[in-house]
Amino acid sequence: MPRYKITIEYDGRPYNGWQVQTDKPSVQEEIARAASFFCGHHVDVVGAGRTDSGVHATAQVAHIDFEKEYEAFSVMQGINYYLFNPPEDAVIMPEKVVPENLIAVLSAERVSDEFHARFTATKRRYLYRIINRRPRLGLEAGKAWHVIEPLNVELMREAAKHLIGHHDFSSFRDTQCQSKSPEKTLEQLDITRYGNEVHIATSARSFLHHQVRIMTGTLALVGKGRWQPNDVKKALAAKTRSAAGLTAPPDGLYLTGVDF
Amino acid sequence: MPRYKITIEYDGRPYNGWQVQTDKPSVQEEIARAASFFCGHHVDVVGAGRTDSGVHATAQVAHIDFEKEYEAFSVMQGINYYLFNPPEDAVIMPEKVVPENLIAVLSAERVSDEFHARFTATKRRYLYRIINRRPRLGLEAGKAWHVIEPLNVELMREAAKHLIGHHDFSSFRDTQCQSKSPEKTLEQLDITRYGNEVHIATSARSFLHHQVRIMTGTLALVGKGRWQPNDVKKALAAKTRSAAGLTAPPDGLYLTGVDF
Repeated sequence: MPRYKITIEYDGRPYNGWQVQTDKPSVQEEIARAASFFCGHHVDVVGAGRTDSGVHATAQVAHIDFEKEYEAFSVMQGINYYLFNPPEDAVIMPEKVVPENLIAVLSAERVSDEFHARFTATKRRYLYRIINRRPRLGLEAGKAWHVIEPLNVELMREAAKHLIGHHDFSSFRDTQCQSKSPEKTLEQLDITRYGNEVHIATSARSFLHHQVRIMTGTLALVGKGRWQPNDVKKALAAKTRSAAGLTAPPDGLYLTGVDF
Repeated sequence: MPRYKITIEYDGRPYNGWQVQTDKPSVQEEIARAASFFCGHHVDVVGAGRTDSGVHATAQVAHIDFEKEYEAFSVMQGINYYLFNPPEDAVIMPEKVVPENLIAVLSAERVSDEFHARFTATKRRYLYRIINRRPRLGLEAGKAWHVIEPLNVELMREAAKHLIGHHDFSSFRDTQCQSKSPEKTLEQLDITRYGNEVHIATSARSFLHHQVRIMTGTLALVGKGRWQPNDVKKALAAKTRSAAGLTAPPDGLYLTGVDF
């Protein structure tokens, strides 16, 4: 069956994360439904990253197998069309209807059967956006984490160095994480300030559940001066979730790219 | 009565514009209500720009008179607090309740009685954001105008030159506009491309109703190659609304600052 790679952006707020849920809307199901309307048969959508509820994406990647060949451009246009305009006789469970569809397919590409959005991905890239100011968020509510206390980016950078490389990230792993091994190789963890925004850009072959959000919550403790950079090294060595900081909210997290 | 200048940001989507409406939520009323909860008496909120329904602001300016003096910081914090947390016994008409409050007071300042947010403003600054790409908007839905046809920014810049300066802007004025005179002095109309975004930055002492959106809709005709830059000059000379292009949607418009 011809396989297509699609790149997708979404505002995660109305969805209960990427993965299909029995009684809640999900990005995966919205795309699968629209793609099925397009091609006329059931399709499965396999995503590179299972983003949590409220997490956004500027470039999530997924693959879909169709029963026949299409122009890649038609796949993009067709899914986007049906995301907005389900057929009039479509039956969609009321609990799965979102007030406004905030998903867009940015591009589509015909790929070989060897391509697998989840298993052949070699790198996932994430951005965590913090707005570091006193007043609450208006324009960017739900799109960034609001941190009031001034963050010292230099100290955060120093702390981040302890997390780079191959480690047992048990301290930075949600207790619900189903990954077989807590060992991961963190390739990048760059912290940059742009005015009152602090961006944490990170990449790895794969991450543990909530790893980016727990790393962010922990680095924020350092940025606020409550922890010393070296305390992050100790937290890592402790290999237990309670040794690290809080899990930063989903609002600031964006899946920004996947390499193959 | 002590007067305070406040600077406000908001996502315009849930509100029926800046100005108080009898049966719909508005930014002005949200702020007046929160400020009244803060000080315990009725207040009027006077804004610098009456943004339309769906138009956003990164730095709207308003003034409020209180019966007594407060620390400016308390005014900012107090209004922000009550925007989020109205008192339990507050009576708010159901048709004025927004699903999520997307307003934030960024700063507050004690000013003299001579200061008037509307009448002493010497310059209003707006940004119009276009996302110029094929696929629909996901992450930025409601926050930018989606234009599919590629825009030629060089031609738009050439066209914009005809609008700079003192003119009768009757062609770029909504038929409902209540301004006494159609003559305005346009100080700035800069067009810049950032990847697939096209930004139109404009400033003037004041604008006619829908002027920025009609200028944008008209410049888009030039960018798409349907009009020549010189056609904008002709549209201006015609002095009638029908001579100009469509009114671009509110989604892409941001009030970004007010000078005094």
